[in-house]
Amino acid sequence: MLDKYIRETGAKWMEGEGPHHNIVLSSRIRLARNFREVPFPSLAGDEETEQVINSVQESLKRGESGLGRPKTIKMKDLSSIDKQVMVEKHLISPLLAKEDRNSAVILSQDEDISIMLNEEDHIRIQCLFPGLQLEKAFEMADHIDDLIEESVDYAFDEELGFMTACPTNVGTGMRASVMLHLPALAITGQINRILSAVGQVGLAVRGLYGEGSEVVGNIFQISNQITLGQSEQDMIENLLGVTKQIVEQEEQARKKLEEDSELKVADKAGRSFGQLSYARIVTTKEALDLLSQVRLGVDMGLLKEVDATILDDLMVLIRPANLQKIAGKELESGERDTKRAEIIQKRINMNTDKQE
Amino acid sequence: MLDKYIRETGAKWMEGEGPHHNIVLSSRIRLARNFREVPFPSLAGDEETEQVINSVQESLKRGESGLGRPKTIKMKDLSSIDKQVMVEKHLISPLLAKEDRNSAVILSQDEDISIMLNEEDHIRIQCLFPGLQLEKAFEMADHIDDLIEESVDYAFDEELGFMTACPTNVGTGMRASVMLHLPALAITGQINRILSAVGQVGLAVRGLYGEGSEVVGNIFQISNQITLGQSEQDMIENLLGVTKQIVEQEEQARKKLEEDSELKVADKAGRSFGQLSYARIVTTKEALDLLSQVRLGVDMGLLKEVDATILDDLMVLIRPANLQKIAGKELESGERDTKRAEIIQKRINMNTDKQE
Repeated sequence: MLDKYIRETGAKWMEGEGPHHNIVLSSRIRLARNFREVPFPSLAGDEETEQVINSVQESLKRGESGLGRPKTIKMKDLSSIDKQVMVEKHLISPLLAKEDRNSAVILSQDEDISIMLNEEDHIRIQCLFPGLQLEKAFEMADHIDDLIEESVDYAFDEELGFMTACPTNVGTGMRASVMLHLPALAITGQINRILSAVGQVGLAVRGLYGEGSEVVGNIFQISNQITLGQSEQDMIENLLGVTKQIVEQEEQARKKLEEDSELKVADKAGRSFGQLSYARIVTTKEALDLLSQVRLGVDMGLLKEVDATILDDLMVLIRPANLQKIAGKELESGERDTKRAEIIQKRINMNTDKQE
Repeated sequence: MLDKYIRETGAKWMEGEGPHHNIVLSSRIRLARNFREVPFPSLAGDEETEQVINSVQESLKRGESGLGRPKTIKMKDLSSIDKQVMVEKHLISPLLAKEDRNSAVILSQDEDISIMLNEEDHIRIQCLFPGLQLEKAFEMADHIDDLIEESVDYAFDEELGFMTACPTNVGTGMRASVMLHLPALAITGQINRILSAVGQVGLAVRGLYGEGSEVVGNIFQISNQITLGQSEQDMIENLLGVTKQIVEQEEQARKKLEEDSELKVADKAGRSFGQLSYARIVTTKEALDLLSQVRLGVDMGLLKEVDATILDDLMVLIRPANLQKIAGKELESGERDTKRAEIIQKRINMNTDKQE
């Protein structure tokens, strides 16, 4: 049963492969849109927010949405753990899980597209693809946006563009981001220089879990800061160009490690794998840091015991809400550290069993 | 071939069981004796030292020595690595390996008795038994001493006792020592208090590799300091009494760990085992520290992957000369760290293969 959960719970959008998937874990496009005639969600009444949900649902039925067989989930129907599970899978935002509003999410069959309703804005279309696929993600988001716009009157200003609840989103209403795994740049000490350069070209760097989150497991999110005065295509091209440069630098750093200190990398990857295999108490941060070393070892062909997707799978599974979902009950912090160690070992054994 | 070496090289005296073997790794008695009519080895000529070797060999043939089929090995016939291998197995002293003298060792068939000839003194009888067996070791050493004395005129003074090259051994010429593994006392922080108390009752505390050696792997040697003014039986009783007290305190500390922090101990043991299983570079000190945690986990029933003798076996096998003997060539320090990791994994796999 647990095996089944582990197999099925790993965020679906991460299962596929994608270009540069050894370094770019995922690409995300998010569009913020609002109804012209309805107050922003924080000011709207239940009837108005319900109208938003219904209108969007209806509009998606009028064409080929690309959502497969979508399901609409109302936040008020979910337990707080179930909401948090979705946050950890990056399917909804922490805000949507937190606010006690008449809000909902429409999920595509593959869970690669999620349309949040009555979050900060009425509509937030999110497309999340594995690897470096910003353009494809934008095409998909753009297509859904067009479909909704056929029947919904968006709040749009000729000069400013799309109006949003928060001024930082006004304009295109678009946030494009990539999630990068950069262990070699961290080991060679080049990461800080590169990240500060990224900041200079109008892009923001964040940790795995968004704004204000600590960097763990050498995982970085890079996204556009500016939503005004640039076309979506220009923004995506900018982010894409910077990402490709970082990917190349990470690849060069890995090549350098291979030449100069392959044994050290293998040693660290092996020890990290060994610890994950037999530890009994593991915090999230430590797990991600160890998984990062394991993943680097696998990527560099120095560790054969597991496959590369162990990082992708576990970075979701070991989060508090997912752990509690698996346990079927609330867990104290200490209990979570024990459960986490157990789940990690389950996942590792699924790999080693397969090999035998 | 390597497996065979690993199986056979582990010091034989450690293979057996003995009382309190989970805490007392070994018990050792050493008697220093000299010929009355021959100058101390540092002053003796080759003819005289040769006479010492022959006399002792002959005297051992005159009765039931308890050595089985002993072999006499002359130091000058050994390579420097072979000598060092014997030092690491505690079969000869570092001094015997170092001095360029006409010296030799007579080893019992089981390698639990070694009689060094022309070390600092003419004769050093050493008995090394697993577990807490000081009395048995003394009986054996005493028996051999008697046998030699039947045909050799010892340097003996009615007032002082046996004369030795170094004044610190004059009197009984006896050094009795035990090698203890005290991880729980180290974890609970009681170790320093206990060791300083040990110092107060005329006993000396040393690390695994004798005088001046750093404490690694929570392994301590405790021995008598005084050789004068006390009978052998009194000295042994004193050391035995203190050892039993320490064993009891270690057992209590383990019980306390079991009650208060079993999971933490299991976690540390597991992580240590995991690191030893997959590391690619390991120093001696780190290996012994990790093995100490593994052994504690096994002793407490918290780690099933290996058996307890892994510490006993590996504390010898991972030493520099043994590693080089296994490799069949000289190794630089860095190469030894890699070879060490390899040997440790071999030894672990011998365990896990057996389980399957």
